[in-house]
Amino acid sequence: MSITTNAIIQTDTENPSSLAWQTTSIADPQPGEALVRIHYAGVNRADTLQAQGHYPPPRGTTDIIGLEAAGVIEAPNGATRPDGSPWHPGDEVAVLLSGGGYSEYATVPEGQLLPIPAGYSLAEAASVVEVACTVWSNIMMTARLREGDTILFHGGGGGIGIFGIQLARALGATVAATAGSEEKLHVCRRYGADILINYKEENFAEILTEHGGADVILDIIGAKYLDRNITALAPDGHIVIIGMQGGVKGELNIAKLLNKRGNISATGLRYRDKEDKAHIVAETVRNVWPLLENGQITHHINRIMPIAEVAAAHKALLAGEVTGKIVLELPQS
Amino acid sequence: MSITTNAIIQTDTENPSSLAWQTTSIADPQPGEALVRIHYAGVNRADTLQAQGHYPPPRGTTDIIGLEAAGVIEAPNGATRPDGSPWHPGDEVAVLLSGGGYSEYATVPEGQLLPIPAGYSLAEAASVVEVACTVWSNIMMTARLREGDTILFHGGGGGIGIFGIQLARALGATVAATAGSEEKLHVCRRYGADILINYKEENFAEILTEHGGADVILDIIGAKYLDRNITALAPDGHIVIIGMQGGVKGELNIAKLLNKRGNISATGLRYRDKEDKAHIVAETVRNVWPLLENGQITHHINRIMPIAEVAAAHKALLAGEVTGKIVLELPQS
Ligand SMILES: NC(=O)c1ccc[n+]([C@@H]2O[C@H](COP(=O)([O-])OP(=O)(O)OC[C@H]3O[C@@H](n4cnc5c(N)ncnc54)[C@H](OP(=O)(O)O)[C@@H]3O)[C@@H](O)[C@H]2O)c1
Ligand SMILES: NC(=O)c1ccc[n+]([C@@H]2O[C@H](COP(=O)([O-])OP(=O)(O)OC[C@H]3O[C@@H](n4cnc5c(N)ncnc54)[C@H](OP(=O)(O)O)[C@@H]3O)[C@@H](O)[C@H]2O)c1
Repeated sequence: MSITTNAIIQTDTENPSSLAWQTTSIADPQPGEALVRIHYAGVNRADTLQAQGHYPPPRGTTDIIGLEAAGVIEAPNGATRPDGSPWHPGDEVAVLLSGGGYSEYATVPEGQLLPIPAGYSLAEAASVVEVACTVWSNIMMTARLREGDTILFHGGGGGIGIFGIQLARALGATVAATAGSEEKLHVCRRYGADILINYKEENFAEILTEHGGADVILDIIGAKYLDRNITALAPDGHIVIIGMQGGVKGELNIAKLLNKRGNISATGLRYRDKEDKAHIVAETVRNVWPLLENGQITHHINRIMPIAEVAAAHKALLAGEVTGKIVLELPQS
Repeated sequence: MSITTNAIIQTDTENPSSLAWQTTSIADPQPGEALVRIHYAGVNRADTLQAQGHYPPPRGTTDIIGLEAAGVIEAPNGATRPDGSPWHPGDEVAVLLSGGGYSEYATVPEGQLLPIPAGYSLAEAASVVEVACTVWSNIMMTARLREGDTILFHGGGGGIGIFGIQLARALGATVAATAGSEEKLHVCRRYGADILINYKEENFAEILTEHGGADVILDIIGAKYLDRNITALAPDGHIVIIGMQGGVKGELNIAKLLNKRGNISATGLRYRDKEDKAHIVAETVRNVWPLLENGQITHHINRIMPIAEVAAAHKALLAGEVTGKIVLELPQS
């Protein structure tokens, strides 16, 4: 059994821009998996990697691209909220996905259905799911950021960066951010970053050292920044690597790490099992949603584009033109 | 003001064997620091590094070698136990030191005074302080080992290894250990290791992979084992590096670490501040001392030698002749 849907299909696996809106099918939802009609899908850098053939979906997942979305429950199939209460047809939801967001319909395990934060539109909700779950799980559940700590975000003007700066600030941390332009740094400052570093002109490791070091570093660069991140680290600090935009293999100076009693974690959301994702989603909704609802943190949508223009959206993201998030709008026929 | 003591003095900084029993002086204890008359001092591999000029004492610490000992309180100087009750002259104590154990007298911050486990001699107590604090803080406080986890100890026949195997076993873990001889592996088996690996003949990474991977690895080798430790790691696993017997700089494959959502920490006990040490000591006494007292874990003294023979003791340790711990006996004139 399967469900017919319109979705973005990559028509040529060699060409990351060959993304066309076509009719296809997805697997029938199992009990506890809701069928969701998608209205908006968030764009993530990982989506561009998948189109380039670098970031395959976990086994058993559709190969339609897309890690987050928001829409309306079409059929709950017995899916319940964490407190056991049922979802109903017509309920608005945000969804965290292993894939399949660029599609009219998606099947979503109950643990990955999130309520829409009060006051949020569906487009706004679609723009915060992946960044909220990623930032909360990494800075709190993995690195255990504490009030008064200093945290460094690389790529402060990106989707993760803008959300992370606000969340860390709301949690009482001193926030440092790197970016490649004054324009992006200006946005970082506006969202609460205290220490602004233009990585094209300044040495972030020196600047952090002058400030006593970073207790937590959320890193998206990988190999290229590995040694400098350790230089920038405070005693007992924690580097969490979630991206490798600067390469995969780097030299680790273990003595230097040991002198700081440093910690390095490398994590990802996509390949976790359902239970793990449900746990992260529940913690994120419990801790972050109230901050969205009272305005301490906000979404930052750079632009909303029709889903048919997804190739242009990916291009803009890769060109570094985007501050914050792009959201794709799906046709509601 | 200072206190006169007999101690082991390195008479030639170029010669690690130039260790002579001489009269010297140590700083007067401050309020909250007890003066302890040492009866037995434990030998650690770090002591041999210090004699080689590689592992200097923290600033403000005597350069007399020695990280652990046991003896009798000469003057408590107001030192109290964690529960606030006072230490008295004549009380037997074990001590965790930043240096100064190879000495008739040592000054010890109150947070580093440990009771003698019931049923233990002073020599036995001197042999477990450093390994107990190191293993507990790393496998529990840093890596958060859980019942049912698999843990790998490199150097299973060493001081850390023998203690770690027993403690992890008592905590309900499946235990793997590497060693370079069948004799040492036999000892590992006797203390509860389930998976025995002769690192000279077998590939530990393959063997751990067959067993589903290690959730925790306590590593003493560093660079040489870095990549293989990641291969041996289970998803969400934790490598804690406490020694670099196999070198300092190694290539880190971040993608490989990220695929496992792996964690790497590098830690040391010696350079922590007083508060941190007091916390580790208190947790160790609270959690590990009962296991020593009920016999679930035991000490393993390889030999007791007169302190005048310390150079020979270091030589034996470096030659790999020692299974378990060497303890030095101090003259009680
Ligand atoms: N592991 C996970 O679970 C997970 C989840 C979400 C995201 N991620 C990863 O996290 C990274 C960020 O995601 P995103 O959605 O925020 O992407 P994004 O919106 O494209 O942001 C990336 C930012 O990095 C900046 N940047 C590029 N090179 C840099 C450098 N050398 N130093 C500092 N900043 C640099 C870019 O802008 P400028 O150069 O113009 O400043 C850009 O703003 C991506 O690599 C993504 O794959 C991982
Ligand atoms: N960071 C800290 O706070 C801290 C605290 C205590 C100890 N340490 C470090 O931890 C390490 C162990 O201490 P220890 O007191 O247990 O020393 P130890 O008693 O000398 O034991 C080291 C063991 O490692 C084994 N070994 C040598 N090469 C090996 C290899 N390639 N693979 C596996 N095992 C190997 C040796 O025996 P065989 O080769 O014969 O098997 C020996 O049994 C030392 O490096 C020490 O400096 C660190």
